[in-house]
Amino acid sequence: MTDIITFGELLLRLSPAGAKRIIQADSFDACFGGCEANVAVSASCMGLKTAFVSKIPSGLLGDAAIAAIRKYGVDCDRVVRGGNRLGIYYLEKGADARPSRVVYDRAGSSIAESDESEFDWDTLLLDTKAIHLSGITPALSESCRKEVSDAVAAAKRHGVTVSFDLNFRGKLWSAEKAGSCISGLIPGIDILIANEEHCKILFGVAADDIKDEHERIIAVAKQMSERFGIAKVVITMRKSISSFDNCFSAMLYDRDLGESFFSVEYPIHIVDRVGGGDAFAAGLLYCVLTGKDPKYTIEYAAAAGVLKHSIEGDFSTAASGEIDELVRNGRSGRLAR
Amino acid sequence: MTDIITFGELLLRLSPAGAKRIIQADSFDACFGGCEANVAVSASCMGLKTAFVSKIPSGLLGDAAIAAIRKYGVDCDRVVRGGNRLGIYYLEKGADARPSRVVYDRAGSSIAESDESEFDWDTLLLDTKAIHLSGITPALSESCRKEVSDAVAAAKRHGVTVSFDLNFRGKLWSAEKAGSCISGLIPGIDILIANEEHCKILFGVAADDIKDEHERIIAVAKQMSERFGIAKVVITMRKSISSFDNCFSAMLYDRDLGESFFSVEYPIHIVDRVGGGDAFAAGLLYCVLTGKDPKYTIEYAAAAGVLKHSIEGDFSTAASGEIDELVRNGRSGRLAR
Amino acid sequence: MTDIITFGELLLRLSPAGAKRIIQADSFDACFGGCEANVAVSASCMGLKTAFVSKIPSGLLGDAAIAAIRKYGVDCDRVVRGGNRLGIYYLEKGADARPSRVVYDRAGSSIAESDESEFDWDTLLLDTKAIHLSGITPALSESCRKEVSDAVAAAKRHGVTVSFDLNFRGKLWSAEKAGSCISGLIPGIDILIANEEHCKILFGVAADDIKDEHERIIAVAKQMSERFGIAKVVITMRKSISSFDNCFSAMLYDRDLGESFFSVEYPIHIVDRVGGGDAFAAGLLYCVLTGKDPKYTIEYAAAAGVLKHSIEGDFSTAASGEIDELVRNGRSGRLAR
Amino acid sequence: MTDIITFGELLLRLSPAGAKRIIQADSFDACFGGCEANVAVSASCMGLKTAFVSKIPSGLLGDAAIAAIRKYGVDCDRVVRGGNRLGIYYLEKGADARPSRVVYDRAGSSIAESDESEFDWDTLLLDTKAIHLSGITPALSESCRKEVSDAVAAAKRHGVTVSFDLNFRGKLWSAEKAGSCISGLIPGIDILIANEEHCKILFGVAADDIKDEHERIIAVAKQMSERFGIAKVVITMRKSISSFDNCFSAMLYDRDLGESFFSVEYPIHIVDRVGGGDAFAAGLLYCVLTGKDPKYTIEYAAAAGVLKHSIEGDFSTAASGEIDELVRNGRSGRLAR
Amino acid sequence: MTDIITFGELLLRLSPAGAKRIIQADSFDACFGGCEANVAVSASCMGLKTAFVSKIPSGLLGDAAIAAIRKYGVDCDRVVRGGNRLGIYYLEKGADARPSRVVYDRAGSSIAESDESEFDWDTLLLDTKAIHLSGITPALSESCRKEVSDAVAAAKRHGVTVSFDLNFRGKLWSAEKAGSCISGLIPGIDILIANEEHCKILFGVAADDIKDEHERIIAVAKQMSERFGIAKVVITMRKSISSFDNCFSAMLYDRDLGESFFSVEYPIHIVDRVGGGDAFAAGLLYCVLTGKDPKYTIEYAAAAGVLKHSIEGDFSTAASGEIDELVRNGRSGRLAR
Amino acid sequence: MTDIITFGELLLRLSPAGAKRIIQADSFDACFGGCEANVAVSASCMGLKTAFVSKIPSGLLGDAAIAAIRKYGVDCDRVVRGGNRLGIYYLEKGADARPSRVVYDRAGSSIAESDESEFDWDTLLLDTKAIHLSGITPALSESCRKEVSDAVAAAKRHGVTVSFDLNFRGKLWSAEKAGSCISGLIPGIDILIANEEHCKILFGVAADDIKDEHERIIAVAKQMSERFGIAKVVITMRKSISSFDNCFSAMLYDRDLGESFFSVEYPIHIVDRVGGGDAFAAGLLYCVLTGKDPKYTIEYAAAAGVLKHSIEGDFSTAASGEIDELVRNGRSGRLAR
Repeated sequence: MTDIITFGELLLRLSPAGAKRIIQADSFDACFGGCEANVAVSASCMGLKTAFVSKIPSGLLGDAAIAAIRKYGVDCDRVVRGGNRLGIYYLEKGADARPSRVVYDRAGSSIAESDESEFDWDTLLLDTKAIHLSGITPALSESCRKEVSDAVAAAKRHGVTVSFDLNFRGKLWSAEKAGSCISGLIPGIDILIANEEHCKILFGVAADDIKDEHERIIAVAKQMSERFGIAKVVITMRKSISSFDNCFSAMLYDRDLGESFFSVEYPIHIVDRVGGGDAFAAGLLYCVLTGKDPKYTIEYAAAAGVLKHSIEGDFSTAASGEIDELVRNGRSGRLAR
Repeated sequence: MTDIITFGELLLRLSPAGAKRIIQADSFDACFGGCEANVAVSASCMGLKTAFVSKIPSGLLGDAAIAAIRKYGVDCDRVVRGGNRLGIYYLEKGADARPSRVVYDRAGSSIAESDESEFDWDTLLLDTKAIHLSGITPALSESCRKEVSDAVAAAKRHGVTVSFDLNFRGKLWSAEKAGSCISGLIPGIDILIANEEHCKILFGVAADDIKDEHERIIAVAKQMSERFGIAKVVITMRKSISSFDNCFSAMLYDRDLGESFFSVEYPIHIVDRVGGGDAFAAGLLYCVLTGKDPKYTIEYAAAAGVLKHSIEGDFSTAASGEIDELVRNGRSGRLAR
Repeated sequence: MTDIITFGELLLRLSPAGAKRIIQADSFDACFGGCEANVAVSASCMGLKTAFVSKIPSGLLGDAAIAAIRKYGVDCDRVVRGGNRLGIYYLEKGADARPSRVVYDRAGSSIAESDESEFDWDTLLLDTKAIHLSGITPALSESCRKEVSDAVAAAKRHGVTVSFDLNFRGKLWSAEKAGSCISGLIPGIDILIANEEHCKILFGVAADDIKDEHERIIAVAKQMSERFGIAKVVITMRKSISSFDNCFSAMLYDRDLGESFFSVEYPIHIVDRVGGGDAFAAGLLYCVLTGKDPKYTIEYAAAAGVLKHSIEGDFSTAASGEIDELVRNGRSGRLAR
Repeated sequence: MTDIITFGELLLRLSPAGAKRIIQADSFDACFGGCEANVAVSASCMGLKTAFVSKIPSGLLGDAAIAAIRKYGVDCDRVVRGGNRLGIYYLEKGADARPSRVVYDRAGSSIAESDESEFDWDTLLLDTKAIHLSGITPALSESCRKEVSDAVAAAKRHGVTVSFDLNFRGKLWSAEKAGSCISGLIPGIDILIANEEHCKILFGVAADDIKDEHERIIAVAKQMSERFGIAKVVITMRKSISSFDNCFSAMLYDRDLGESFFSVEYPIHIVDRVGGGDAFAAGLLYCVLTGKDPKYTIEYAAAAGVLKHSIEGDFSTAASGEIDELVRNGRSGRLAR
Repeated sequence: MTDIITFGELLLRLSPAGAKRIIQADSFDACFGGCEANVAVSASCMGLKTAFVSKIPSGLLGDAAIAAIRKYGVDCDRVVRGGNRLGIYYLEKGADARPSRVVYDRAGSSIAESDESEFDWDTLLLDTKAIHLSGITPALSESCRKEVSDAVAAAKRHGVTVSFDLNFRGKLWSAEKAGSCISGLIPGIDILIANEEHCKILFGVAADDIKDEHERIIAVAKQMSERFGIAKVVITMRKSISSFDNCFSAMLYDRDLGESFFSVEYPIHIVDRVGGGDAFAAGLLYCVLTGKDPKYTIEYAAAAGVLKHSIEGDFSTAASGEIDELVRNGRSGRLAR
Repeated sequence: MTDIITFGELLLRLSPAGAKRIIQADSFDACFGGCEANVAVSASCMGLKTAFVSKIPSGLLGDAAIAAIRKYGVDCDRVVRGGNRLGIYYLEKGADARPSRVVYDRAGSSIAESDESEFDWDTLLLDTKAIHLSGITPALSESCRKEVSDAVAAAKRHGVTVSFDLNFRGKLWSAEKAGSCISGLIPGIDILIANEEHCKILFGVAADDIKDEHERIIAVAKQMSERFGIAKVVITMRKSISSFDNCFSAMLYDRDLGESFFSVEYPIHIVDRVGGGDAFAAGLLYCVLTGKDPKYTIEYAAAAGVLKHSIEGDFSTAASGEIDELVRNGRSGRLAR
């Protein structure tokens, strides 16, 4: 039995060490990541059985990519091997007033050029509880769009919970294209993860006249829930003070309960800016699949997202106990000896 | 003439570089440390003549351990060589909301399995002004308990000043065992270093009904002083905001003066969480042995502790002039060119 | 279906970078290894389905140890978690005239202190083709000896091929104890891997009066085969010229064919001295399980062992195609672009 | 056509990695820098055509020094090669309460021992818009003083804009000597960059009785402008909270407009403490040479200085667009994907 | 006046540190390289004025690529900026019996997708003595083929010396396609660099029945010279013993002199396998452009190629004096103090 | 009681990592070294009590220099602190055909500018068995020449064994100056270490007409012994094949025995080229002071020198047991487990 399957692109991430800029670097820290793989790894470290579906090239690079997530217990047996190249993203880590910069070099990757016939979702989703998808994959190519659409349809056929993270990437496609495409994918899914800005620019869903942030966020979530018929709409809230300092909190709107649940707001001093939302999604799914109550769910997910920012690389390696400890004790960082 | 002798375990410390977690590491930063060795090194860097007493295995690891403290001028001629292994502690450095984690692997170490006959304190303490001990060594084994007890007795015989840092380690023994054992060691010693929490859980000494922190700390110190007949009781106060941010201050209660002296409170952005208390103890002893007044003493000790958090590894390498500069100028960090 | 199960200790290996000595190091390269885990990883990289059985502590270190071999596709579901510590071996890599030095710090490890009741071999060996064991595990403790003995017995009951690598370690036990213990373990097993020196000092099996090396090696193998009733006896031959330069070759004696097969002799310029024999064993098992002829088998095994010396760490990551390429083309190292 | 020529010393900078102290280091991060070279590189990265004039030794070290700035597009054809040694400065980076420490080892460098006849300023300044100098070069030697004086005179002859950064270095000469020497260099130049403290201790120019910081700074600038007949006086304001935390802002007084322009004040979490003032100077010159209005000029210069603190080494590599982005958007550090 | 222009692709090269394999790496050493850029850098370090022509993307990666060669004095003003991506090649460095492995990820690079109208060779070749091209560029795309062809034609029009290195890359195109394409490019050029194997598989030019290596090499060179009307044909001879050990020598056939000149044969212990042929080509051109005699020319070129193998990265940084020293003194490696 | 005092300069050594060239480096491996300090450290690691005499600047750099040798047990209490700077030598490590390059930056160092009155040799040599000096120190300055001369005189007064290593450095002074100066220092000393080339160019002592190397070396040694009245003349013989490969052997001529003793000749694959001669000298002194016979003495010294080439940095850390093991077993580099 698999708890969560995720489907998407696994990229090589290259970053100059520490605060070095690309022009200064004579080496790159290398790891692998990508929204959906990050969710699979993070959920596996929390204790769920997870599997990753993708297309990854044969050879030394592809082998290394797969080994990198298999290391954390993610089942990679469903990965299709082949195609021309592994996508890359360069991450020049920001510092203080200098923002992080991402350079995508993912065109022509094996998954972008995959064919939808390579993914038989009825088989892939056998004995699976949930599938997690994001708005990045349909941005990669026409075939990827079709593959995500097929996956959602199959999941519905088999009663598999569908979770979708909007994750709009302006460097991959326009808000117009994204909004139109994703509008066709998310109706009737179980869980949607979004932020206020993306709801507005992709779907025109906003509540800008409400001053109170909590009220406004709830209003946006309700509109999303209604418009797309989604039971759980989750909104993440990030305030960016500098490259080093952010604040993070989140809200879970549960249509069936008719209630909204806010996490505490965490100040964060950032070690690694990437993957926080993915760890958050993994935490959310962990609680949904293990039957936690909604208040704990949103606290756990937020804590998982916050902890990720203290961990290098795309993946959160936080164990469930570590996340729970943060939920219960707050971020005092006390050293136990 | 030796100013300070310290006695305890010297361990190999292994930490993943920077904010990496153990599961991500393919190398460990390696240094050596341990409460009492840290005090010896830190006091040596301040300008005192110090010596370290311990049992350390023969061979490549033990040689490296000794070289690491001899480098800073600590006299190692009194170290007994032999036994089976060098204790280790793994330190996964925390970051922001993620606390540092210590994994002890010190069972069966040479000192834990040493025999009290290997340490002839009457000889070891010849021409020595002070000995510094801590609550860690008696937690290691029955023989270590006896060795500490012998050392205290010999020091009293020879008029050597005895300084003792409670340093309760819950991963080594229970509060009950620690309280009972240490109650037998500290009566009549000269200097006790403790914090509020440990006074309470080890000895039930508390003043929780006093709201004002300074008043409460004084009350605890007085009780400790009275109960164990100790002339100087020093209480350190650490507030943990996150793995990166702490506040630190300290108080010296001088029974003979009947007065209490508080240092300023420092905010700290932490580079290395370990060894602050040991640098503090070294600073305290430095002032006591060089005849500084109590107000300067507590300020100097606190500044030494604070500076340590800006230095990698277990040891403080701060020179006396650097500490004095911090006492006099505060932590502006101005660059002199 | 599992091709090979291996059982033994997985250790943390700590080495100063490059040619640094331990006393010079302020960091250690860290990897995980141990004879039987090495065989599992190496065989997995060749394409076999492998599983590792051991006892490994819970917590950060144990998690990292397991992740390190799961990364390469080894099934770790049969590992027992618990106990007190992970064994360590320090490896100070030699250079030229300076030999590598190994310092074991493995006493008291979880597997050494495991109980034989923790390993139910009838279950563990279900659907398994072969088990690989070595002379290191019985050297760890009385219970480990019993566990190896139980494993051999169960394998025989279930018709599982048993492969055993003598791997005498003089730092763990005496030749006398080893000879006596192992004499009880290997009668009737399928494959024995040994070298000339160990046959002599453990069992007194030698043919020193035969000058011709090939003839002498065959004579030793035949004696071993006869004395212990073993169908395939494999002898490895290493000549040590310096820490950097070795020569390596091997011989397979097949009792049922009544023939001996020698590999070519390779000169080796060493990158990493450890794990060559384990990669050799994995190569041997790969060929046996995939039905290769004996001449190719010994060539492939030798090439696998040689290639390992060009790879950092305990594990060989050589794919089957790479090994075959070396068998067919020799070690010209030509760059394909 | 060259936009800016700078003249001064290029040094090798050696720093222990991260927060390590010199006594702990077994390697030094190495880069090249020095006030005037920093301005040339920073302005080149902003898009100006810049050239560097100096004397740098022949051989491996000098070649590396030149390559380091040529890399960023600085024209080095006017550098004189020869002399005995390359100056060095050791930078032990501070952390939190521990200040950074600079150790100069620059006596006897090629430029300090150069002869003024080696620099023919009428030729060097051909087709040049501006020259930037600082108070460091005249501190190096008598001949350097003469070279700076010659350069200013030639620039005036040819209508080249002269910019001068006081940059008093107390480790190189006394305030008295500096004040007296520089008083002879700056009369009638176009742009002077200073801070309040140096105006006071070098020239006795102060307005200490004015409480309001902005008013006081303006008063100081006006006095400097009047006393030395300088059209643009720029005052930088740095508040040092700790080695990690500073605040930075600046003011431009334009005599001809009779107006003062203040930048916003930035909090800074420091990655590298050195070179901020040089990037500021480069930003200032960039705006002056490209005809920006004074309000934007001071904002751009301040932003350039602030961004530098997020970049390792002496040089700012910030492109003009990055600086403009900070001026327009503030330091939110948002990640664009 | 420019001595040599080279035209081709500049790639990012990514290699695991030391002997690590890609699957083991958590960082990649990063440098930039590519046949023609290597020649430009190497010749610049020898003292020639060189310029590089290419198309390189805008942004952080492209800026870094250009800075990397500008650092060594190569004029980059003729580089066209734009297009989609920078090509990459992964280099897993071999060791001993394990060959180095190159993975190309260069499809879709800016130069591969450039348009021939972007390169106006009549302008680009103004005041230029020689152009160096290779068989790699025409393998990249149809437009690149046209660009090389245009460059050769323009060079002939302007009397610019044309040097061409066959550099057949089987991973980029077939021998048939390469032979057919290059046959159209090289007739009438001035210098051709090749090896025996490529002459045979691309053009069927061989002399396999001649046993004596020198005689055979001369025969091949003569055939190439005659068939394509080339004045100087240079043949390099590499013997690959292992990834660490090669032998290298070369021969220059001068049609007009009717003579052949062989270099000595060097044993090489390899630090970096890539770029030896490019340093060789640079050395050859250096001698041709500075009028050296043919015997010294081939010795200097061979020494330049050999020295490159002792230098990390794609570029040779050997100064002309260093190469000459090797020609005159041989490879004793004596240390001068 | 001190076994050996050495007197000379302790320098900071800066080397790019691995085979990188200085122009490629963005960090330098840093260690400390210098002929006489190397002898003190190496002899200390062999088990002798050693002390180092020098003048070293106050402050961070000087502290680090002293800590670096105190770490290995060398007594530094006799070091004078003060003066202007610590000398530096840059070492660009060679590789294969590329020789190592040393750049001295030691002019103006504290010891070079020391005054002979700072060293009171009658006190410094109290309770000392031997003093080791070299031809480097008198090359530094007039005062250093006087200090060495004073030391020799005092040693003779006190019956302290004097050992002198010619160590001619052509980058510091001419052969003429060196020969003339050293001729005044060495008459009547106890042990002289030299090589054939230096005997010839400094003193014109040669036996070039003797073909047999051993005979020739003996003849040179005898001439040196006679001319300068020295009881033990030791000649080292290094053959340089490449930067990686050398051969090393040595000969001890004992005038009083009238015999010559040659060590075996070792091939060496070099890790670090510097300090071999110093480890050799330490080994020689170790045997002389511990009363070993001359054959073992020269074997031990040669083995110590050879082992040094396998160790990074200037210092040999080889223990006496390791050296003896090499003498007895040869350089097979067998791994003991």
